[in-house]
Amino acid sequence: MTDSPFAEDLSGPLTDPRDRDPVFPLHKGGKIEVRPTVRVRDRAGLSLAYTPGVARVCEALAEDPSLAYRYTWKANTVLIVTDGTAVLGLGDIGPLAALPVMEGKSLLMKEFGGVDAVPMCLDTRDVDELVETVVRMAPGFGGVLLEDISAPRCFEVETRLQERLDVPVFHDDQHGTAIVVLAALLNAARVTGRVLADLRVVVSGAGAAGVAIADALLGAGIGDIAVADSRAVVSVDRTDLTPVKSALAARTNRSGFSGSLNDALAGADVLIGVSAGQIPDEVVASMGPQAIVFALANPHPEVHPDVARRTAAVVATGRSDYPNQINNVLAFPGLFRGALDVRATQITPSMKLAAAGAIARVVGDDLGPDFIVPSVFDPRVAAEVSRAVAAAARIDDVARG
Amino acid sequence: MTDSPFAEDLSGPLTDPRDRDPVFPLHKGGKIEVRPTVRVRDRAGLSLAYTPGVARVCEALAEDPSLAYRYTWKANTVLIVTDGTAVLGLGDIGPLAALPVMEGKSLLMKEFGGVDAVPMCLDTRDVDELVETVVRMAPGFGGVLLEDISAPRCFEVETRLQERLDVPVFHDDQHGTAIVVLAALLNAARVTGRVLADLRVVVSGAGAAGVAIADALLGAGIGDIAVADSRAVVSVDRTDLTPVKSALAARTNRSGFSGSLNDALAGADVLIGVSAGQIPDEVVASMGPQAIVFALANPHPEVHPDVARRTAAVVATGRSDYPNQINNVLAFPGLFRGALDVRATQITPSMKLAAAGAIARVVGDDLGPDFIVPSVFDPRVAAEVSRAVAAAARIDDVARG
Repeated sequence: MTDSPFAEDLSGPLTDPRDRDPVFPLHKGGKIEVRPTVRVRDRAGLSLAYTPGVARVCEALAEDPSLAYRYTWKANTVLIVTDGTAVLGLGDIGPLAALPVMEGKSLLMKEFGGVDAVPMCLDTRDVDELVETVVRMAPGFGGVLLEDISAPRCFEVETRLQERLDVPVFHDDQHGTAIVVLAALLNAARVTGRVLADLRVVVSGAGAAGVAIADALLGAGIGDIAVADSRAVVSVDRTDLTPVKSALAARTNRSGFSGSLNDALAGADVLIGVSAGQIPDEVVASMGPQAIVFALANPHPEVHPDVARRTAAVVATGRSDYPNQINNVLAFPGLFRGALDVRATQITPSMKLAAAGAIARVVGDDLGPDFIVPSVFDPRVAAEVSRAVAAAARIDDVARG
Repeated sequence: MTDSPFAEDLSGPLTDPRDRDPVFPLHKGGKIEVRPTVRVRDRAGLSLAYTPGVARVCEALAEDPSLAYRYTWKANTVLIVTDGTAVLGLGDIGPLAALPVMEGKSLLMKEFGGVDAVPMCLDTRDVDELVETVVRMAPGFGGVLLEDISAPRCFEVETRLQERLDVPVFHDDQHGTAIVVLAALLNAARVTGRVLADLRVVVSGAGAAGVAIADALLGAGIGDIAVADSRAVVSVDRTDLTPVKSALAARTNRSGFSGSLNDALAGADVLIGVSAGQIPDEVVASMGPQAIVFALANPHPEVHPDVARRTAAVVATGRSDYPNQINNVLAFPGLFRGALDVRATQITPSMKLAAAGAIARVVGDDLGPDFIVPSVFDPRVAAEVSRAVAAAARIDDVARG
């Protein structure tokens, strides 16, 4: 065996079928590391970075805690918190199995936003315990990114944490998705020559993403929104709704529409699918002229993009192998970059709106039915998003720096 | 102002006196960062490191959690936990002000041991809350380094955490100090031609370090140990002792000696000072022939090393500007390197003993009264410590890898 050219990779079973999938070799040893940014080469250096010199920095911080933003990693470092209950399309796989996703988020935070991000996979799913644990961890971090926490717990966790902490708390599955959806919709309206406020929108899915998307669209001036859960459109006359969904029904379904998702889609301008359910081809075809279809379920969109494109003017999915990929990576690195740059105390609705506008604007003259969002590798995205978010934070007076 | 050559450093008050102390410029922005170890350059790379590819790694981990050691950062990553209650000589300065020390530990972990270490400054000082919080954070980490938690809470926190977790839990202020003290004492006995077991030892200080040092010396075969707190030598007849100190008295002071620290030092072979108290010159002079004095209080040793050296054969301090610096950096990076390398479930007494022996051996033929511990910059230290610790873990059957 020792003359195998792959000897160093044989730390596991020799015939591990995982080694034939390039995903596994890439993940060996994980995807991130913690590194010094200063070098300690001799006793003099050691006595500055460590004892006795470091004690003078500690004393300064004890006297003036705000100096932590200047003399520690806090100003640039975010905690990525999950409990592993709603991981990708996999569902409740637990905190440890969620770690590769959190490492991926950390990698993207640094790569695209220059933000240091620490994955924290918590072994509890109790809302009180999640909140208390994050509050206790908070002193050394400039922000909290919540990830893959199932609804409806995620709403309460985010709200309570933001009340307790003076740094931004942001649940990516809600607001990251909503920001990119809004960016895409801004450009889809533009490319089809319509005004955002006039659109009649149907959202399929009333979980974390569905609720946040509906709120973002409301904030952007869209008045006619119907949100459907797995049973029907949520409406105030339904008695089977959670408190979160009841409140959502009151905010969105102002006409009091009562009926199925398919009923609501007849003649609608926009479908935003953020559920696992499939939508029949003929229902998509029943939408209004110049329809906009965002079928974001992964890996299987609610309707196949090729089918949707037969009748719809613009189609987007969550997949990288079709045009118009709705990818949160467009939002969260620049958003945190901007929030950290001005030491924002929270992420306000107008900061999210500003992020969506910035993502949409980067598309510029390349705009077309198959190009409503920029590439995640376009370096202007994070730069423009961070600038817009920082400016909005200053206007909203939540910036401290 | 714009033509100042220091313009980029003027983000704080213009006349900040801190800028004249080189410690502060070195700390700007902190001392560590989180970086990707894999690059994502295109959509293909993104679909491996992130969605959809990463989902296959998550599924594999959900099925077999031990794969986290292969496909995440867990195998090489340690959580550095403090509550900021006993930071250096500064005492209870709180979690945020402790962060520069934890960043320093992280830096040294990577620099000397190749270990990734995440500082976690917890905003609670309740033992139950500390334990529960660390247990919840534990899934993504291969070990826990406890730092600067005040006695006697530190004993309970460490014991309970090690009972709950299947990864090594190690309180550096106890065992890191004890390991390096034992290493130094092994060589001090050698250089003065004595057998360790025959030494009569007095420990000044019955806090975290004092208790752990006494236990390490007992484990190394020294039978005659007297430990003094700020009042007197701890003995079973004292009624003012905490449970921890009573148990310590029963383990150490077997002759039932009752009296002051100064009384105990008359004729003693070894003084190990880990308290803030001063010891009069004449008391040090009253020790036995070829006395060994480790005056480790920082920044002011219990007795000035120049004074101690007049009568003692070997003198060590915690200071870098005198010979024989007792520095925990000699122990913890190699210790965790070795423990992680074999996936140890705990740090056993014999692993600590092995670490001490390895540190002592690196000195080799350079041994002399003013050279009983190696330089922290000697690359052999972490290598030898990790090897010895890994071997001891296998013998103790706490190694899984």
